[in-house]
Amino acid sequence: MLEKIQKLLNEKKYSEVKSILSEQKFFDAAEILEALSDEQLPLVFRILPKDTAADVFAYMDSDAQEKLIHAFSDKELKEVLSDLYLDDAVDMIEEMPSNVVKRILRTADAETRKSINMLLQYPKDSAGSIMTTEYVSLKKDMTVEDAFKRIRQNGVDKETIYTAYIISANRKLLGIVSAKTLLLSPMECLVEELMETNFKSVSTTEDKETVAELFMNYDLLALPVVDNENRLVGIVTVDDAIDVLQDEATEDMEAMAAIVPTDKPYMKTGVFETYLKRIPWLLILMLSAAFTGSIIRNYEEALSHGYVILTAFIPMLMSTGGNSGSQSSVSVIRSISLGEISIKEIIPVIWKEIRVAFLCSITLAIVNFLKLLFIDKVSIAVCVVVCATLVVTVFIAKFIGCTLPIITKCLKLDPAVMASPFITTIVDAVSLVVYFQIATRVLGI
Amino acid sequence: MLEKIQKLLNEKKYSEVKSILSEQKFFDAAEILEALSDEQLPLVFRILPKDTAADVFAYMDSDAQEKLIHAFSDKELKEVLSDLYLDDAVDMIEEMPSNVVKRILRTADAETRKSINMLLQYPKDSAGSIMTTEYVSLKKDMTVEDAFKRIRQNGVDKETIYTAYIISANRKLLGIVSAKTLLLSPMECLVEELMETNFKSVSTTEDKETVAELFMNYDLLALPVVDNENRLVGIVTVDDAIDVLQDEATEDMEAMAAIVPTDKPYMKTGVFETYLKRIPWLLILMLSAAFTGSIIRNYEEALSHGYVILTAFIPMLMSTGGNSGSQSSVSVIRSISLGEISIKEIIPVIWKEIRVAFLCSITLAIVNFLKLLFIDKVSIAVCVVVCATLVVTVFIAKFIGCTLPIITKCLKLDPAVMASPFITTIVDAVSLVVYFQIATRVLGI
Repeated sequence: MLEKIQKLLNEKKYSEVKSILSEQKFFDAAEILEALSDEQLPLVFRILPKDTAADVFAYMDSDAQEKLIHAFSDKELKEVLSDLYLDDAVDMIEEMPSNVVKRILRTADAETRKSINMLLQYPKDSAGSIMTTEYVSLKKDMTVEDAFKRIRQNGVDKETIYTAYIISANRKLLGIVSAKTLLLSPMECLVEELMETNFKSVSTTEDKETVAELFMNYDLLALPVVDNENRLVGIVTVDDAIDVLQDEATEDMEAMAAIVPTDKPYMKTGVFETYLKRIPWLLILMLSAAFTGSIIRNYEEALSHGYVILTAFIPMLMSTGGNSGSQSSVSVIRSISLGEISIKEIIPVIWKEIRVAFLCSITLAIVNFLKLLFIDKVSIAVCVVVCATLVVTVFIAKFIGCTLPIITKCLKLDPAVMASPFITTIVDAVSLVVYFQIATRVLGI
Repeated sequence: MLEKIQKLLNEKKYSEVKSILSEQKFFDAAEILEALSDEQLPLVFRILPKDTAADVFAYMDSDAQEKLIHAFSDKELKEVLSDLYLDDAVDMIEEMPSNVVKRILRTADAETRKSINMLLQYPKDSAGSIMTTEYVSLKKDMTVEDAFKRIRQNGVDKETIYTAYIISANRKLLGIVSAKTLLLSPMECLVEELMETNFKSVSTTEDKETVAELFMNYDLLALPVVDNENRLVGIVTVDDAIDVLQDEATEDMEAMAAIVPTDKPYMKTGVFETYLKRIPWLLILMLSAAFTGSIIRNYEEALSHGYVILTAFIPMLMSTGGNSGSQSSVSVIRSISLGEISIKEIIPVIWKEIRVAFLCSITLAIVNFLKLLFIDKVSIAVCVVVCATLVVTVFIAKFIGCTLPIITKCLKLDPAVMASPFITTIVDAVSLVVYFQIATRVLGI
């Protein structure tokens, strides 16, 4: 597709380019535009049909958006801004350097500028930061007929018209009504009789993760956002909630892999930026591995007198411990994220993990004992030391793996960030201490 | 809340229970019912208002659903079934034991049974398995007024009425039209003129993960599902797409933590089932750690003659290698899942990882060199061996970490399942070989 467009551009067949691009979904057209050269991008953007240009712009990544803004005249910029949904405009502005932001705010009309400035003030990760101020509002004494009239008049540039919000004269949110309810009700019926007054809403400062969870649990299409005095200030729509859910899952995975979470896609993150996200944990974990090293050095003397064989099993013990611990921690962290378990359930979680640890450790110990005895042909005493360590390590790993995330949650820290990377290090150190303690007792080293 | 309900139940104040429950959202009412005792559950369910009972039922977990079905008379079961959305009914049936399934199918009316049987036949994880057959269909020669009439007649029991599907006499899908477009158009306008013919659709056998990605990329509320001959057979709605996205993220995390993915929540999975999901990878990884063990045993002789100190750094080298590798693999696996990178981009990905590896390894090596020299006070030769190994290990770990997921994707395997658990094992073995090779050359052991 891109090659075809390139070819048509070289042949200056712009009307064909226009007809191809206007057949594309906004997301696909945006992908095509992003792949064009810096010279082609503004040219092709100007070819786009007027009514779809802003939609395509909203789907482009911030690099392409910035290039376009630099190429825009003030008039063009104003046009695109006025056609963008407000929340998309704010998302874009948040990624732009300050000189571009200044130009955008200068160019926008007074009302848009006011709304953008208001939205920009909400803290990152708050409901306010992902909401839009464009919604359909109704009065409670309207009939269904009035409501449809109002939706027809005002609905064109609203992100959703499928939920309408009933507000009082002083903008307090009284109720919500879905387009479905309106459509299935008689025209003379009053909105007041149809509206749902027992609805979910969030405050502007609510964590966006909580907002996204509400969408997931209650199957919402939109959620009203209110201020301290229950005045409606905006709505969050389901497409933004999906983005939040995906971002949160990505951040949890990154944290589990000892990466400082970023909100940029992998290919858009520069090498140095990627380095900065990865090196902190690598350094912390490398230095904390010094503990395990010093434990081994304590036993250096003993090991060198006939028990160097014990070192051969250190990697296996450490990796089995690490794997057992991360199995438990990842299960628990994800369940906390999904709201499936809360900190109250620490006791049933531990009890479950203990029983799983029992089954896992016994299985591993038996298989390992047979392998050591018949394949590695080591002495029974060494077999016993290794397998006993295995059992204890798996128990400790699963215990730490399930409790640490819940404890970090209690301390209002992020379980994924604070728990996962440390678990392996803690388990490594513990398993080594256990190993040498058992070895000292059984082998007398 | 639960305590309050329990108290009212003990006092037999059923009308108050009813009024409290009918004020709850379906999800919350379902959570309350799940927490009741086996005796209370059917009692309280029967108290629920008739029009919300099926909705609450749909939100309950399968254990509670099964208990209720056992308590239901055939008449009650039939009522609940006829009020459930078809996709919710099928989701429920998929979790039930076969005798319950038989009873459900026997009780359902002929048409529902036919639809359920059809939906049950679609492969697990296919678009067909998550779709519903309840949607609003229109004819292309209808006017907007006709369309609204039809929506009013048929919309009540449809999961969404916000997208209507225009089909031909032989059920081929011709176009889609949103309720927004209909609402904002004149009443006499023909549906044919308003409908979008350039729409996204999927076949019944399409992977549900692909379906969910379409929702995410194109901000859809519903997606039509067609058979081989482009006949409309059902639609997928955004709430089900969100569930798929969340499930896929959970499965990826589980796979990354060496757990066989499950589709049940943590607390609903039994101890033995959890054991079965965890033990396979623990066994595989424990046994494959034998490689690393045998590498150490090869050098046992050399180590015991004055170089036991080298073993003290094995845990640090292995954990740094493992962390470096999983940072890369998790970044790449998540980007593949999100559709951000494709297998074509293997070269830019490797090139990026090489540069990041350069920065990371140099930083780690410098910090480690200083620590070894000034804190651990080991000889310069040992410092050189350890730090050189560190550099090589980080490079290899990041290289394997980014290529293995892409290769497994090429082989049409799941990158999360097949790549992550092995990366640490491979990196462990490689780093040990490098370590001893360098040690042999530098220290002459």
